[in-house]
Amino acid sequence: MSIGRQFFSWLLFFFPVLVQAQPADSLQIRKIVNEILVNGQAYQNLRDICRIGPRLSGSPQAEKAIELTRRMLQQAGADKVWLQPCLVTHWERGAGETAYLVDSAGTKFTLRISTLGNSMGTDGKDVCGELLYINRFDQVDAMGEKMLRDKIVFFDLPMNPTHIRTFQAYGESGIARRNGPSLAAKYGARAVLVRSLASNVDAYPHTGATRYNDSFPKIPAMALSTQDAEWIAENMAKGKKFTACLRNRAVMKGEVLSYNVIGEIKGSVYPEEIISIGGHLDSWDLGEGAHDDGAGCVQSIEALRALHNLGIRPKRTIRAVMFMNEENGGGGARAYLDSAIAKGEKHVFAIESDAGGFSPRGFSFDLGDQAYGQVKKWAPLFAEYGIHRWERGGSGADIGPLKKIGTALCGLRPDSQRYFDVHHAETDVFSAVSKRELDLGAAAMTALIWLVSEYGLTL
Amino acid sequence: MSIGRQFFSWLLFFFPVLVQAQPADSLQIRKIVNEILVNGQAYQNLRDICRIGPRLSGSPQAEKAIELTRRMLQQAGADKVWLQPCLVTHWERGAGETAYLVDSAGTKFTLRISTLGNSMGTDGKDVCGELLYINRFDQVDAMGEKMLRDKIVFFDLPMNPTHIRTFQAYGESGIARRNGPSLAAKYGARAVLVRSLASNVDAYPHTGATRYNDSFPKIPAMALSTQDAEWIAENMAKGKKFTACLRNRAVMKGEVLSYNVIGEIKGSVYPEEIISIGGHLDSWDLGEGAHDDGAGCVQSIEALRALHNLGIRPKRTIRAVMFMNEENGGGGARAYLDSAIAKGEKHVFAIESDAGGFSPRGFSFDLGDQAYGQVKKWAPLFAEYGIHRWERGGSGADIGPLKKIGTALCGLRPDSQRYFDVHHAETDVFSAVSKRELDLGAAAMTALIWLVSEYGLTL
Repeated sequence: MSIGRQFFSWLLFFFPVLVQAQPADSLQIRKIVNEILVNGQAYQNLRDICRIGPRLSGSPQAEKAIELTRRMLQQAGADKVWLQPCLVTHWERGAGETAYLVDSAGTKFTLRISTLGNSMGTDGKDVCGELLYINRFDQVDAMGEKMLRDKIVFFDLPMNPTHIRTFQAYGESGIARRNGPSLAAKYGARAVLVRSLASNVDAYPHTGATRYNDSFPKIPAMALSTQDAEWIAENMAKGKKFTACLRNRAVMKGEVLSYNVIGEIKGSVYPEEIISIGGHLDSWDLGEGAHDDGAGCVQSIEALRALHNLGIRPKRTIRAVMFMNEENGGGGARAYLDSAIAKGEKHVFAIESDAGGFSPRGFSFDLGDQAYGQVKKWAPLFAEYGIHRWERGGSGADIGPLKKIGTALCGLRPDSQRYFDVHHAETDVFSAVSKRELDLGAAAMTALIWLVSEYGLTL
Repeated sequence: MSIGRQFFSWLLFFFPVLVQAQPADSLQIRKIVNEILVNGQAYQNLRDICRIGPRLSGSPQAEKAIELTRRMLQQAGADKVWLQPCLVTHWERGAGETAYLVDSAGTKFTLRISTLGNSMGTDGKDVCGELLYINRFDQVDAMGEKMLRDKIVFFDLPMNPTHIRTFQAYGESGIARRNGPSLAAKYGARAVLVRSLASNVDAYPHTGATRYNDSFPKIPAMALSTQDAEWIAENMAKGKKFTACLRNRAVMKGEVLSYNVIGEIKGSVYPEEIISIGGHLDSWDLGEGAHDDGAGCVQSIEALRALHNLGIRPKRTIRAVMFMNEENGGGGARAYLDSAIAKGEKHVFAIESDAGGFSPRGFSFDLGDQAYGQVKKWAPLFAEYGIHRWERGGSGADIGPLKKIGTALCGLRPDSQRYFDVHHAETDVFSAVSKRELDLGAAAMTALIWLVSEYGLTL
């Protein structure tokens, strides 16, 4: 794009969106947004977190990230920062995971794989069997033991590209990763390969948790890069047959002690009313957990920093929470709820950012009609920032349990087109994050919790 | 993000947005979007265009891109494909451009620079002078010859980060690149360094056209990486002084013959009414011109391909136009208008994509009140695709001249947060483009021109 006359005529039409009803709110939100866009620390904080390396629950890197974000919360100006103990799943991939195919001519094809999180290992030995191709999950029961016995089952369920909201495609195709291993084991399969839950086609396998059903044998399961998945699908469609062999040293070590990291600014008028803003600090052990969910952590820290730096003392208590163990156990989320119940805390509102550090497009709210009617009135204040999507819906895995104690919940909804290119893969690194997009997401969340803090919510 | 219960409760709220008023239009648009998301060729086409290398007007690569996109339009199913001759500016950077600073202790600092497009060269010799720091363009006249005579002027105008619409910041800070060299020359400066028009801080200089005022000497001008700009600003703020030396072999070779590449599908009912959809084929000579504007070209080709593949015969004639020479001359745009006038063609609507291949957020329309009232009624059809921004405004530099013959104009408005990280720089490469974002932009434009083709516009 050059800078011709057209461009300037376009500029003439940039009128700021004035929300006449609430000019003071509009100005305050503009202050918050500008503070974050001009002085924001989220991007630098994310770089520092990513430099630690991946932060799988129970790993030494997760421990380092706890200490690092504790310091970040202090520097952000929190009145109080603490570590909240929680029991977390400790699973390790182990070194030397491999998978390969052998065709009928004896030619060997190495696959680019990643063992699924929480999956059984093969103790460093090859587990082999004939490869069985399945691209419709609902056909497995009909195929039954006759087809599955002793096979290596390959679930090839591409994410549906026609869903504009990629999380919908993730939810649908994800059934193979979540339930495939136990379903295959039910009918005697030896192991499972799953097409990565990726919206693009490339060489990187995407991991993620699987869930064993205790009624069936726990068989090893790996994710396959989408490139390899397409290659196999093409070849098997032509009638080629393969033997597949999987090997790894994955091991489930059970529960260990870890921590949520929490910082708060005490409310000036209603200190007992708590507003939580959070992301999860743990990540998968591939990449750097930049979008998932370093972004949500640094955005939450940024909310405290921006309010503090602007000298805004919120009426209600605002807590930034780095939840531990979202990816493969949910231990941090449970501990946060348990502590809230034990202490009789009043949690009025919670928002989570766990859909990537991309340009914010809106929020989805999980709360009662009255409270929704109330928050929906704030929508015009966000329009000039491109935040148009304002709807009922879920929130986040970490804050979800707070529903039990009546908390109004909310999820930040960023643009989702690129999320599943990097999600749970080696490609989820700091350089895949845009500073401005990250900052705008932080600003959107900060503005929203400031409004809740000012006006409260009728639950 | 893992796949907990929260996620599924969120899914429950995904109701498709049904536009009751126009169910048939809604369905047809869904078909177009799905065709592009499932069978789209835009991403592969972009890869092939980018493999040619940068496509500065008059370069051998630009000629290759003409031939390649001509074939792409044929393969897309155009009824007719042709090359439209145009005279374009032919400027060359030349090899060995350098710039460095020397401080008072004699220490030399090499700068990461890129000569501004259309700029004079130094014929391979160093042009040196004391470095003068300017961060307010409106102060230059007051500084005058006394301050500027024999200096190397450094314009340090960062893009204003508080503009949510980054093009606004680009327009404002861009005054230094556009007008700085001639203004500095007016007061006797020897050469100019300009902070890159980049929204991030990194090591890559961003080029772009400058415009000489013929009343003043034409002095050489280079863009500086934002990292170097910040480093210099910091040091000069501490009182450090530098001598700067610039050297290059840039040369303006004048006008040469080149071509716009055009493909059309003839209208079935009103073939004489033309709807143009376009981008520009030329790029700067850094990077691969992926977002600027390979994206706009392949999206326009994709529009024809999708309509053809779906068997949709438009009522009005639809033309995909790859304009040449948008970046440093506008020769293609002039030729397209001249031809339209010479042939007495009736151009009813034109849309350009020249703001990057990012997630589409909306359109800006440059047309009369009646036509705007008409197109605005289509907005609800686009809401389910996240396309909310529907407003008056400019269109694009290539289609802009069509205003003279009364054409209704429109610009695709993608998310702009990342555009100025890569714009006119080495980083504007294929790998910086997301397939889904690119496809959604193509789908948005195709849906809009299909509506115009069906219903026409009352101009």
